Amino acid sequence: MTSYTLLKARSQEVARIHSIGSILGWDQQVCLPPSGGAERAEQNAWLAGQAHRLWTDPQVGRWISDCESAPPQPADGFVPANVREWRRRHDRAVRVPESLVEALSRATSLAHEAWVEARRESRFPIFQPHLGRVVDLLRQTADRVGYTAHPYDALLDEYEPGWTTAEVVELFDRFAPGATVLVRQAGDIPPPGPLPAGPYPIGAQQQFNHRVAESIGFDFFRGRIDTAQHPFCTELGPDDIRLTTRYDESDFTSSLYGILHEAGHGLYEQGLSKADHGTPAGQAASLGIHESQSRLWENHIGRTRAFWEHWFEEAVRHFPQLADTDPAGITRHVNRIARSLIRVEADEVTYDLHIVVRFDLERRLVEGSLAVADLPEAWNAEYEKRLGLHVPDDSHGCLQDIHWSGGAIGYFPTYTLGNLCAAQLIGAAHRELAGLDSSLAAGDYTPLREWLRSRIHGRGHSLAPVDLIREATGSPPGPEDHLTHLADKVRLARES
Amino acid sequence: MTSYTLLKARSQEVARIHSIGSILGWDQQVCLPPSGGAERAEQNAWLAGQAHRLWTDPQVGRWISDCESAPPQPADGFVPANVREWRRRHDRAVRVPESLVEALSRATSLAHEAWVEARRESRFPIFQPHLGRVVDLLRQTADRVGYTAHPYDALLDEYEPGWTTAEVVELFDRFAPGATVLVRQAGDIPPPGPLPAGPYPIGAQQQFNHRVAESIGFDFFRGRIDTAQHPFCTELGPDDIRLTTRYDESDFTSSLYGILHEAGHGLYEQGLSKADHGTPAGQAASLGIHESQSRLWENHIGRTRAFWEHWFEEAVRHFPQLADTDPAGITRHVNRIARSLIRVEADEVTYDLHIVVRFDLERRLVEGSLAVADLPEAWNAEYEKRLGLHVPDDSHGCLQDIHWSGGAIGYFPTYTLGNLCAAQLIGAAHRELAGLDSSLAAGDYTPLREWLRSRIHGRGHSLAPVDLIREATGSPPGPEDHLTHLADKVRLARES
Repeated sequence: MTSYTLLKARSQEVARIHSIGSILGWDQQVCLPPSGGAERAEQNAWLAGQAHRLWTDPQVGRWISDCESAPPQPADGFVPANVREWRRRHDRAVRVPESLVEALSRATSLAHEAWVEARRESRFPIFQPHLGRVVDLLRQTADRVGYTAHPYDALLDEYEPGWTTAEVVELFDRFAPGATVLVRQAGDIPPPGPLPAGPYPIGAQQQFNHRVAESIGFDFFRGRIDTAQHPFCTELGPDDIRLTTRYDESDFTSSLYGILHEAGHGLYEQGLSKADHGTPAGQAASLGIHESQSRLWENHIGRTRAFWEHWFEEAVRHFPQLADTDPAGITRHVNRIARSLIRVEADEVTYDLHIVVRFDLERRLVEGSLAVADLPEAWNAEYEKRLGLHVPDDSHGCLQDIHWSGGAIGYFPTYTLGNLCAAQLIGAAHRELAGLDSSLAAGDYTPLREWLRSRIHGRGHSLAPVDLIREATGSPPGPEDHLTHLADKVRLARES
Repeated sequence: MTSYTLLKARSQEVARIHSIGSILGWDQQVCLPPSGGAERAEQNAWLAGQAHRLWTDPQVGRWISDCESAPPQPADGFVPANVREWRRRHDRAVRVPESLVEALSRATSLAHEAWVEARRESRFPIFQPHLGRVVDLLRQTADRVGYTAHPYDALLDEYEPGWTTAEVVELFDRFAPGATVLVRQAGDIPPPGPLPAGPYPIGAQQQFNHRVAESIGFDFFRGRIDTAQHPFCTELGPDDIRLTTRYDESDFTSSLYGILHEAGHGLYEQGLSKADHGTPAGQAASLGIHESQSRLWENHIGRTRAFWEHWFEEAVRHFPQLADTDPAGITRHVNRIARSLIRVEADEVTYDLHIVVRFDLERRLVEGSLAVADLPEAWNAEYEKRLGLHVPDDSHGCLQDIHWSGGAIGYFPTYTLGNLCAAQLIGAAHRELAGLDSSLAAGDYTPLREWLRSRIHGRGHSLAPVDLIREATGSPPGPEDHLTHLADKVRLARES
């Protein structure tokens, strides 16, 4: 067996352990009984430790060196990219001791349980010691991984390889002022009339969501949809991709856009190369690229007038009260612009300001210029400043998101990177695919999905995220297309 | 750290891996999308391999030898029993190579998927090659484990330590003739009238089942109930015990008795010593003992007139049509006796004959005197001979049970052992607990549950199953109490 073959098998074994961890994580969010959290933390820690041990094995370093000094022949197209990415991951992993990996896994499992309770009771002090421990362990991780400019670099690199904190700051600085102006312009647009009153029964929502997800190409033979407090998509194996959403009986569009979003992630996972499963070439490029897929389907497809012209009749069959409105009415409803406190319920125009707040706060937490105990106050001040909103309690403030409880600091900026990339990708698709408008109007999503398969999904992590976007759209991620898209949204809201 | 401490930690690590495997197994039966089976097989195999590797580590053998030659001091009461059981398990495990363990794990994961399909389509040939592979691997396992009289001994020992095949044959020979006579006597009893017509909505069944399970002491803070094709109980961690059942909208008693049965298993798991979790003293003694707990609650409590006198009013609140019957009517319905094809739907009187058939067939499969290809024919002949029934198709015949697809050969006799032990245990409880009849009549299940906690649950696997029953009831497992119980059932059916 060659070093490359051994390395590939090891990479696949580690990916398998991560999938097992995803099963435990999915179950924790969808099923776990209240008392089960403590042992689940130990189970997760054990798995994390095994994966870490296997990947930091000195033999892995030697196999990688072998491949670097004598590239395997015949090399298929993905071999150099795999070796390069394995090198990055191995170097990163060996710098973090197993004890730290296990401690972080255990701390985040417990922090998740504490966060659920803290959010339910809107009491930050329940979560505070857990978040303190998580931030402390992440700072230790950053110190071990190493960085030149800012400890946040070491965390960001986990989610968005190839980007530095300074580059994201610079990009956000080019984007945020324009977004702020648009939010201000939208401020005096009167809200559209409400949707016809509910209830929109959960069963009917589930059926309609299923139909929509299936139509854009989500394969239910290789996946499913469940209910969880926080919508997510997770890979439990190459043929087991799961989406979750939550239901609001007064507004069917809440779960629908949750599913359109998560199914966008799911299409990416289902579109990865199965032949390369468990290797970088068969894995997602980054979270920002992942998010570009979910946002594209959720916003650039799902919130268009064309989407509702196509789906209106079917929606009425599921929700007869919708007969009192029309496609234009639903489109107005799902494009209403209003500053609000909860990120996951934010409209497109204000959404990125929620990210700017979090990106700023988590950088300060990591560098130590903001104490965990002072987070609620700092959060509330940022919402006052950037969105002009008063935060009434922590469950509508710094307790709203699951991320930090899971140790995912460095993750939030990938949402806005995803928005920027989604706008660039849909623009490129429209330039390249003649007749795209009419296929979308007919509810035929195949041409767009296949274009994404060839330009993004099927290429996995064979390119750095920036290069992947450059090759697919002609330029690296920038703010222009997304700002243009948001300006269109403001204009349409004003005109309608 | 002493050898005992190291050994205990290793035992707990292995138990943790088994719990992770149970999460994957639960998910496979409750949630897994159709395409997910292949990778799930690999994930299970990986976990099985890890557990096997850790437990066959030569260091484990040395630690056990240390404890045997110089028993750890101060020894709590369970130390000698733990060391004895660890020795048994280690000796057994080292004889089976890791490759065989992984092959069996992989084969059974795939066989499970094939069985689901074969049963749905009632086509044995879909399942046949998988069962052939499983039987072959189990025969290899038996050869490696070793046995003196019969290869089946080596498999039975996995589920019912301390029993030999010959002993079970001898016990069944003392039991089966009496059971056969009772079945014949019951043959001419006219069936009771049906329950009031359904539908019994699934939601109402779930609520009623939840109330009943809670009343006998199942702790939903440490467990939950889900829907699966085959009812089961599984331990995903000491505080995460899950039950499943399936629903028939025309008869609410089907899911109810499923839950009473599985909750009996669940009470055992929840009643194990948490301080000894992951060691034999904190684990169930055997499957037969496990089954004694489920049968006791299902049959000796749930099918009594006293049970329905207590629960009737509440049942009517959930299922208003029951107002047309009375406690005696429901009791008659749930004690009707009729020979039938499906084991899990069999009444108490005929049930054990289903087990006798399976025990006989699986012994012949393992010894090679019955070819897998000939199983359907042999199955059908046995049902003709023992129950006088014609099997119309394989889904009502040899495809009905999940066990063989999971490699669980040697498991079926534990059901009848459980029935025998349940009858002995409830008899002993009645002798020892003054006023038990009146507390049961009042729906107060605490005295019985606490008696089981002290005599069975809390003792874990600190004694061999036979000794556990002898200490709790005054005699080893025998046929008398169960035959008396069945004869009472026949008499009551005739009188009512």
